[in-house]
Amino acid sequence: DPYLKIFTLNSNPELAQEVTDHVGVEMGKSSVKRFSDGEIQVNIEESIRGCDVFLVQSTSEPANEHLMELLIMVDACKRASAKTINIVMPYYGYARQDRKARSREPITAKLVANLLETAGATRILTADLHATQIQGFFDIPVDQLQGTPILSDYFKDKGLEDIVVVSPDHGGVIRARSMADRLGAPIAIIDKRRPQPNQAEVMNIVGNIEGKTAIIIDDIIDTAGTMSLAADALVEQGAKDVYACCTHPVLSGPAIERIDNSMIKELVVLNTLKLPEEKQVEKLTQLSVGPLIAEAIIRVHEHTSVSTLFD
Amino acid sequence: DPYLKIFTLNSNPELAQEVTDHVGVEMGKSSVKRFSDGEIQVNIEESIRGCDVFLVQSTSEPANEHLMELLIMVDACKRASAKTINIVMPYYGYARQDRKARSREPITAKLVANLLETAGATRILTADLHATQIQGFFDIPVDQLQGTPILSDYFKDKGLEDIVVVSPDHGGVIRARSMADRLGAPIAIIDKRRPQPNQAEVMNIVGNIEGKTAIIIDDIIDTAGTMSLAADALVEQGAKDVYACCTHPVLSGPAIERIDNSMIKELVVLNTLKLPEEKQVEKLTQLSVGPLIAEAIIRVHEHTSVSTLFD
Ligand SMILES: Nc1ncnc2c1ncn2[C@@H]1O[C@H](COP(=O)(O)O)[C@@H](O)[C@H]1O
Ligand SMILES: Nc1ncnc2c1ncn2[C@@H]1O[C@H](COP(=O)(O)O)[C@@H](O)[C@H]1O
Repeated sequence: DPYLKIFTLNSNPELAQEVTDHVGVEMGKSSVKRFSDGEIQVNIEESIRGCDVFLVQSTSEPANEHLMELLIMVDACKRASAKTINIVMPYYGYARQDRKARSREPITAKLVANLLETAGATRILTADLHATQIQGFFDIPVDQLQGTPILSDYFKDKGLEDIVVVSPDHGGVIRARSMADRLGAPIAIIDKRRPQPNQAEVMNIVGNIEGKTAIIIDDIIDTAGTMSLAADALVEQGAKDVYACCTHPVLSGPAIERIDNSMIKELVVLNTLKLPEEKQVEKLTQLSVGPLIAEAIIRVHEHTSVSTLFD
Repeated sequence: DPYLKIFTLNSNPELAQEVTDHVGVEMGKSSVKRFSDGEIQVNIEESIRGCDVFLVQSTSEPANEHLMELLIMVDACKRASAKTINIVMPYYGYARQDRKARSREPITAKLVANLLETAGATRILTADLHATQIQGFFDIPVDQLQGTPILSDYFKDKGLEDIVVVSPDHGGVIRARSMADRLGAPIAIIDKRRPQPNQAEVMNIVGNIEGKTAIIIDDIIDTAGTMSLAADALVEQGAKDVYACCTHPVLSGPAIERIDNSMIKELVVLNTLKLPEEKQVEKLTQLSVGPLIAEAIIRVHEHTSVSTLFD
C-alpha cells in the first residue's frame, strides 16, 4: 500500500521496526540528526504526498528532545503534503502535569496537546494515559491502547495460583479491577495514610492478601518508591509472593536499585519506552506492544474501529 | 512598580540579572527545575495576576531544553492570570531553518513562532533575527533590537584608523553598510565562488582592502568556518589587520580552535547567549545588550516606542 508510511524517530526505533514488520511495510526513509549547535535536522527521504503518515515516538527521557524531534517532523510532514499525520506515542510524557495541583502550576500535558495540534498532527495513538482526561485536552481523535490485557495474559500463562491483584493507590482501582476480572481474582488496595502530620506514612492494606500471590499493577513506575514499599508491606502482612507490573517503565533515579532491594519477585513491563541496557536487570521482564500498535495502525488506515481491539 | 515582573529562565541568568538591575526591579521569584525523569518543573513563587510579565530566555544550546522551559513557563503565567506575557529572547534559536531550501524540509523558525503563540506569548522582544522575515511568522508584535550600534561604538572607541567594514557574504551587506555608516568607512564584500563544480571555493574580495583595517561583521558565528577563511583571505590580499564581530556567538564545534588559529586579531560579540568558561578565550571580547534590553522593557511596559531606541 503506497499510501501508508511509517517513520521512526529516535526514542524507540526497535519498537518502530517491530511495528513495520507486523504491518508488513518497509520503514519510511528519514533521519533525525543534529546540526553542530545541537539543533534538530529532519530529513524525509521519500515522497509522502497524499499518504497516511504514522510517526512512532514516545516522549520518554529526554522528553523535551523527543518532543521537539516529533514537532519538527510533524511540521515537515505537513509541508510535504501528507494527507494525515498520525502520532504513535505509546508513552505520553508530561502526563502527570495534568492539573493545577498548586497555585501557578503549568498544565504541561495540555500544553503538549496544543503543541502537537499546532504543529499539524491529525490523530494520536497512545497507550494508558496517566489520566484519561488527557484525551479531552485534544480537539483531534485520540485512540488509547490498553496494557492490561497483555500483562494479564502473561500472568495467566505463568499459571500462578490464588492470586490477588493490588492497586498501589485509590486512583488505580479501575485498572486493578480490570486485571482482576481477566484473571478471575479478587482485588486489594493500598491505603497510604499519615496518622499524624510529620509522622511516617503507614501502608494500610484493604482486602485479604494472607497467603496469596499478589500482583501490584500501576500505569507508570518512575522512582519506584511507592511500588517497593508496597511490595515489602504486602510480604510483611502475609502475602506469599509479590509480582509487580506496569505499562510504562520510566524507572528513573533510584528505581532499579529499589526494585532489586525490594521483595518484588518479578517486575513485568511493556516496551512503550525503550529501556537502556543497564536497566534491563534480571528481575525485569519486558513485553511488547508492537503487535497491538501494528493492528491499530492497520485499522486507522482502513477506517475500522480501534476500540474493538479489546473486545 | 508592582505590575512589572521580570523572570529569568536557565539559559542566561547573568544577562537577566543585569536587565533587572538596569530596570531597577527585583528579579521575579521562580525556579525551573527537573523532576527525577528529566521533565521540567516550573515554580512561580509570587503572584503575577494582572502584571506585565517579561521572561528572559534565549533558545541557545541546548535549544530544545531552553525552548521547552520557556513554553512551560508561558503556560504557567497564562494560567496565573498575567496581563501580558512578553518573551525576551535575545537569541532566537532555529532562525536558520526559515525556509524550505530543499524538498520536505521543516520550517522550524515558523514552528517555534507558532508554539510560542500557542503557549500564550503576547509579544516578542528579540535581537538581530537571522532573517527579518521571521517577524512575519508571528501574529503578535515583535520588537527587534540591533547589535550593530553597540558593536560600532566599541570599534569607534578603539580609535582604529583607515577602516573597511567587510560583509562575509552577499546576504550581510545591509548590516555591513549600517556599521560602515556609523564608522564613516567604506565597505567590501566577500564573494565566495566555486570556479568549477568540485573545485575548492575561492574567496574573491569585492572592494578595496589594501593596507586597511578590516572589520568583518555577521549576525551569527557558529562553526566559524566562513569567518576564519574570510579573515585569512583578507590578510593574504593585503589587509593590515582583521577584526571580526557578530551579535550571536553560537561558536559550536571547532569554532574556538578555528578563530584561535586564524588571522583574526580580536573577535567582538554580544551576550545574547551565554558563553561557557572554555569559550571565553583571550581573543574574544563580549559586550552587553543588558542596558538596551532594560530600556526596551521599560518602553514596552510604558507603551512608548521601542524602535526610536536606535534614532
Ligand atoms: N515527571 C514527574 N515526576 C514526578 N512528579 C511529577 C512529574 N510530573 C508531574 N509530577 C507531579 O506529580 C503529581 C501528579 O501525580 P499523580 O497524583 O500521580 O497524578 C503532581 O503534583 C505533579 O506536580
Ligand atoms: N543550526 C543550524 N546549523 C547549521 N545549519 C543550519 C542550522 N539550521 C539550519 N541550517 C541550514 O542553514 C541553511 C540556511 O542558512 P543561511 O543560508 O545562512 O540562511 C539552511 O540550508 C538550513 O538547512
